[in-house]
Parts: sequence; structure tokens; C-alpha cells
Amino acid sequence: MNKIYNPTPDTWASILERPTKTVNDIEATVKEIFAAVQKDGDAAVAKYTTQFDGVYFENSEVTAAEIEVAINTISDELTAAISLAKANVEKFHQAQKTTRVSIETAEGVQCWQEKRPIQKVGLYIPGGTAPLFSTVLMLAVPAKIAGCSEIVLCSPPDKNGNINPAILYAANLCGVTKIIKVGGIQAIAGMTFGTKAIPKVYKIFGPGNQYVTVAKQLATQFGVAIDMPAGPSELLVVADDTAVPAFVASDLLSQAEHGVDSQVILVSTSKAMIDAVESEIQAQLELLPRKTIAEKAIANSKSIFVENDSIALDLINEYGPEHFIVCTANNDFYVDGIQNAGSVFIGNYTPESAGDYASGTNHTLPTNGYAKNYSGVNLDSFMKSMTFQKISEKGIQNIGTAIEVMAEAEGLQAHRNAVTLRLKSLE
Amino acid sequence: MNKIYNPTPDTWASILERPTKTVNDIEATVKEIFAAVQKDGDAAVAKYTTQFDGVYFENSEVTAAEIEVAINTISDELTAAISLAKANVEKFHQAQKTTRVSIETAEGVQCWQEKRPIQKVGLYIPGGTAPLFSTVLMLAVPAKIAGCSEIVLCSPPDKNGNINPAILYAANLCGVTKIIKVGGIQAIAGMTFGTKAIPKVYKIFGPGNQYVTVAKQLATQFGVAIDMPAGPSELLVVADDTAVPAFVASDLLSQAEHGVDSQVILVSTSKAMIDAVESEIQAQLELLPRKTIAEKAIANSKSIFVENDSIALDLINEYGPEHFIVCTANNDFYVDGIQNAGSVFIGNYTPESAGDYASGTNHTLPTNGYAKNYSGVNLDSFMKSMTFQKISEKGIQNIGTAIEVMAEAEGLQAHRNAVTLRLKSLE
Repeated sequence: MNKIYNPTPDTWASILERPTKTVNDIEATVKEIFAAVQKDGDAAVAKYTTQFDGVYFENSEVTAAEIEVAINTISDELTAAISLAKANVEKFHQAQKTTRVSIETAEGVQCWQEKRPIQKVGLYIPGGTAPLFSTVLMLAVPAKIAGCSEIVLCSPPDKNGNINPAILYAANLCGVTKIIKVGGIQAIAGMTFGTKAIPKVYKIFGPGNQYVTVAKQLATQFGVAIDMPAGPSELLVVADDTAVPAFVASDLLSQAEHGVDSQVILVSTSKAMIDAVESEIQAQLELLPRKTIAEKAIANSKSIFVENDSIALDLINEYGPEHFIVCTANNDFYVDGIQNAGSVFIGNYTPESAGDYASGTNHTLPTNGYAKNYSGVNLDSFMKSMTFQKISEKGIQNIGTAIEVMAEAEGLQAHRNAVTLRLKSLE
Repeated sequence: MNKIYNPTPDTWASILERPTKTVNDIEATVKEIFAAVQKDGDAAVAKYTTQFDGVYFENSEVTAAEIEVAINTISDELTAAISLAKANVEKFHQAQKTTRVSIETAEGVQCWQEKRPIQKVGLYIPGGTAPLFSTVLMLAVPAKIAGCSEIVLCSPPDKNGNINPAILYAANLCGVTKIIKVGGIQAIAGMTFGTKAIPKVYKIFGPGNQYVTVAKQLATQFGVAIDMPAGPSELLVVADDTAVPAFVASDLLSQAEHGVDSQVILVSTSKAMIDAVESEIQAQLELLPRKTIAEKAIANSKSIFVENDSIALDLINEYGPEHFIVCTANNDFYVDGIQNAGSVFIGNYTPESAGDYASGTNHTLPTNGYAKNYSGVNLDSFMKSMTFQKISEKGIQNIGTAIEVMAEAEGLQAHRNAVTLRLKSLE
């Protein structure tokens, strides 16, 4: 890790800078595939699945028989773990349900706000070496609680044309209505335009590589909403002498193993802690199967020593970490003062892994500084807020004049007239 | 209005199609101005203000003296109207405040969700013939209630270098922290990158012409969030024989006067009502100062007759109107069944103008079908949801095994190890 002592605030921005990727070279590919899928539908999707995933399908929808096989493949140990995680994710997201907000703003003027589900949602689950069935829980469980009527899941097939059984198991368990063996740009394009096999959806959720990320961005230009802009995962730990160096090191490494571009930062008011964590990292690194990846991410990571908690908090708020672990004598100070973070993990026995899998919080979180302006995925992500109003004869008499005056001042006579006509009818 | 009787569902999509605009020719201009402002800051902003607004500023920030003059310009009648509207908007948005959602998902595993304000927000208020001071209320009031610490307002100056006094009055009244006389693409670029005069913000709100709309879209590529994609304003009224034709006509016209591209649709189970509304529209049109605009919008609008309420509701949900007025014998059926609408106005004495100005609901709403996947602006638009978790020694013992099993199954050993180390320390 790169050690930085007492950086002055004017250097924070450059110290905390994330690696930016240029996506211009990807954009052309994404646009080409979108155009092909928009024009040729499933035929184009099949062509790109053959090209990128090496398999050809007549029918890309996962069948009940395939799901049955998957269910029988999963070990009892894993089904028990998934059940526990699902129960906690359900409890936490169920608790986020809100009721109608209703208020009589003036006598006879009843206004209310209600949230109603987004009817059709699409979940993207990447393939590759790490089958992210945990992300299925994080997206399908709140979609179901929200009441989305159509929950489509797309995930790329392996060379044999299969999706990892744990993904199928979790999708089936959580009430996904359709599972489709299509990945990458063609999956996002399919859910954007709709094909015979892939339903058009209103909002697309889920992680992915940079092709998928750019595809989701492009989807927004065709009227589809997305959960949030994506970027490499990141973790910032603030630790003082009350932290356990081995625990802190294990948390930093759990982030580092995601990818060579993962962001890992340690902030501390203790130089001794920084040194102790560094030694622990070296020791633990040796035993990791994904050592090569983690090693590279750690090499780019930073340990920052600052004089006190107040400076530390300012620096952390400037960074806006996706994951923020707090292990200090002064945890409440950080919890109360943090303005920009996706999810906050408090104390020595709260590893980031807990939130990644089983505590109940959502692991789909804003990275790349987006914690400053975006929420992590939560129940509301699957709903939209609508307002209603019902005004009585008395009500329009109470607020009518104000509307007339304001409409007039904005030069909108027809707006005024809609009120004047009603007021006159009541004279 | 174009009358359509009993359209079959397979024709709905084309009947309800919105006019799409090509923005490719605008994009080049927007990108050029963004690049210039990113590179040259205020000098570039001043250059474009001179070019587009015909005025040059050394200092574009509105001074206390200018605000003082504006306050003295506003009539007592208008200040009273604005006060009433502001009070109602405050009441309705204040009522949307939520408290921490906290739950122990498993013994020793405490998870909670809190909303914290987006620290820096930018409000864009267009200039032109209709000075939209009402939009200042709709954006600044919830920003203030949310607790945003920096609320920047940009609005284009007129030829004399002034912003309409009603806009200044409302901005000052609602707690805007800085008002800047800059409009158009250069204003959005300024708030995206930050200049000496214009603060960089995290989220940009507000309406605008197609240049502003494309600029806001481009801003999202530089890490700034926006309220929602914009499009021409639209209104759908469902009315049966219990409606008052003159009222319905006045509502349709109030939408039509916004612009020639405004969308106006009447859906009815009564052919007599469709005819009566049409006659009323012709009569009322004659008296409108913005007749030319409204006439063109009405010429493109549609009256759709359907056999019953059930078909009407399906058609309306397929359209997803920004504003939806319900004047039928069966209002509850529509209110309960509407899935996709920005704001719903119920009954004969609830004109859209009420929500535009003074009832308390927000008038910044999703158009162009975005009611299917976006919320209108509300208190939460100015906040982001963050999660927290605190796990005790007992808690990690309760969920630790599940995390280990799931991390292992996803091939993420370092994630597993962060738990294993902690569990071992407790043995």
C-alpha cells in the first residue's frame, strides 16, 4: 500500500482520484449491437450469443426442467445459507415499505403521495468465474416485495449453454418470472427493445463488466431507467488503535480480490495501526487463491495517516466510498457525520462480507463517488412515487385566487381560466 | 382534436405515440460548449452568455442589492399568492420526511437505512416569456426541507442583464444560497464542472428547452445526477357524462398553451362528452392570448372513445401520462388502478393548474412515458438513502457460517476469510 502522511486538503482530490476508464472504443460496439437487436430481434441476439459465448440457442429461455436439475444440484449447506440470507434481506427490505403520505394542505385540498411498483423490471447477473447468485437475492427479493409484476433475469450461458445452478436456484426461489440465457450487450439491448424471447422492461438493474455498463447507459437513451451508473467496487476503512489489524487487513483484501481495479483505502489516526495492517496484509495475501488479483489492487491502494477524526471525516466525505468500515474508539462521530457513503459497517465484528451476503442490507451500492448523489438499491428503487389530489368546491375557493394570480404572472391565461371557470360556477 | 372510436389494443401504441425529436444536431453544440467551459471556466461562460443572451457580465452572481430591488417590485397580491403556494408545498413535502428504518434481522445484527441530504444541488430555471417562479418553489422548498447545504440557482438574464423579479423574489424567499445569471448549456456545464463563479453541484434539477435537456443528459456522463429526463408536457383527461365539458376543455387548453408540442388526450366512454368538450374548446380558444400555440397543440391532440372504464384504464396505463385528470362516476376505480402517471387530479374541482401552482404537490413530473419508471420530484429527490449495520460478536456467530458458505460458492475466499478470522477469535 502507498503510505501518505498528513496530506493537505488541497491534495485530497488527486490522492483520492479513481482510475478513469475511457469508454469511447467500447461505445461503437455497443451501438452496433443495439442497432442490430432493435432491427433483427432474437436473430441478432442469437448471433451475438454464438459469437461471444460460443453457444447457439433455438430457445434461450430457461425451462422448468433446467430449474429442477439446478435445484437438485445445490448442496444442503448452500441452500441453508441462501435461505438465511434471503430471510434477512426480506426482513430489511420489507421494513422499508412506506404507507401513503396524505395531508390536507388547505381546507378542502387533500394531497397524497403513494408508491406503486414499476411493472416490468430486468435483472442482469454476470457470468464468469464468480457466479453472483447473491446479487440475485439482492435484486429479486426487493422487486418481489415491491410488487413488480414481471421480473426478468438475463445471465450469460457458459460454453455448454448453462447458467450456474446457484443462480437458477436463487432466481426460482425469489420469484423471478422469466430466466433467459443471454448475457452482455445483447441482453441489455434485448430488455431495452424487447424481442419475442426477451420482454421489454422499464428499468434494468445489476452489475456487469464495462460493456454491460456502457450498454446500460445507452439503454437510458431509449427510455429505460437503470439502477445507477457502475464503476469498480471500493472500500474505505477508518481504523484507530482500537481496531484489530488482522480484521482490517482481511476486509481490505476481500475488496481487493474483486479485481485489479478495485479501490482500497485505509485512513487512520495511528501510524502503528497502518504498519500493523500492512504486515497482516502481506501474511494473509499468501494464502489467497485470487492472490494475483488482490496483490495488484493492493499495490494501487493507499494508507492515509491524518492527525485526528475530524480531518479523517472530511476526507472520507470528499471521497464518498461505496463501502465504509468504521473501527475506532469514536464510531458514533463517524456514523453521525458521514454524508457520502453507500453502506456503513460499524465495529470490529462487522465485515463488509456480512453486507455482501447475509446481514440483510443491499450490496448493490453507488461506487465511483456516486454515493454523493445516488442511493444504493433499496425497496424504493423498484417503485415510483406518484401524487394525487382531490379538491372540493370549498378547496378551490380557498386556493383559487392564488392560482389565478400566479398563472397570470407567468403569462399562462389558460391555466388561470381553468380555475376562473370553476370559481364562477360556484358563485 | 382527432377523434378515434374504439381503437383495438394493437393500435394503442401508435395512437399514443409521442412525437420524437432527433437530438443529434444539438449534441455537437452541447459537447462543444461543455468542452469550452471545462477548459476555460468563467471566460467561456461569459462568451456564450454574450453570444446567446446578448449581455456581458464581469460578475454573474445576483447581488443582495438586486434582490432588494426585486422584492420591492413584486405586488402585494403576488407575494400573498406565492406565500400561500409556498406554505402548501412546504406542508406536503415536509409530510414526506421519513425516519430511520431500523431492524434486527438476526440476533446481534442491527441494520438500518437513513436518508441524508445531497449536499450540493443546482436548480435550473428557464427564462423567456413565461418566468417560471412557480418552479423555483417546487425545487427550492424541498431542497431546503431535505437539508441540502448548497442550493445554487441558474437562470438566463434578459437583454438588460436581469432575471425576472418574481424568480429572484421566490429564490430568496425559499433559501437559495446563490443565484447566478447564466442560462442554457453554459449554465448546466458550469454546474457540472464548477467555475470560480458557478459552484460544482452533485445533482441538477429543473426544466428547459431541448438544449438544456441534452446538456443535462451529457452532465450525467461527468458524474452529475439529474432529476429526470425531460420531454414536452402532457395531460390525459378521462371524463364520462358526469364531467363538466367547460372544465374539461379548460384543462386541456391549459396544457395546450404550454407549447405546440404539448400532448393533450381526452379519453371518454361518452361520445356526447367528446363532442361537448370539442365545442367548448373552440369557444374558449378564441379568448386565449396564447391562442396560436394552443390551437396547434389541440390540432395534434386526440379524443379517444372506448366502450368502458376497464378498457380506458388499460389504455391510460399503456400511455403513462404526466398529468392525469379523472372526472367520472367511477373515480375510485381509476385511482386504485392507475399504475403509470406522474400526478393524478380527481374530480370536477381539481384542475391541473392547482397542482401546477398552489395545492402543495410538486409540478416537476415525468413526461414522455417516464411515469412508468421515474418518480416526480419529491423530498427524496434531494436525498440519498444510505444503509448502516452493526454486528455484535453474537451476531457474527449467528450469520457467519452462511456468509462463509456463500462466499466460498462464489469463489471469493478473501470474503470468506474476513468472517473466518473473526469467528476463530471468538472460539
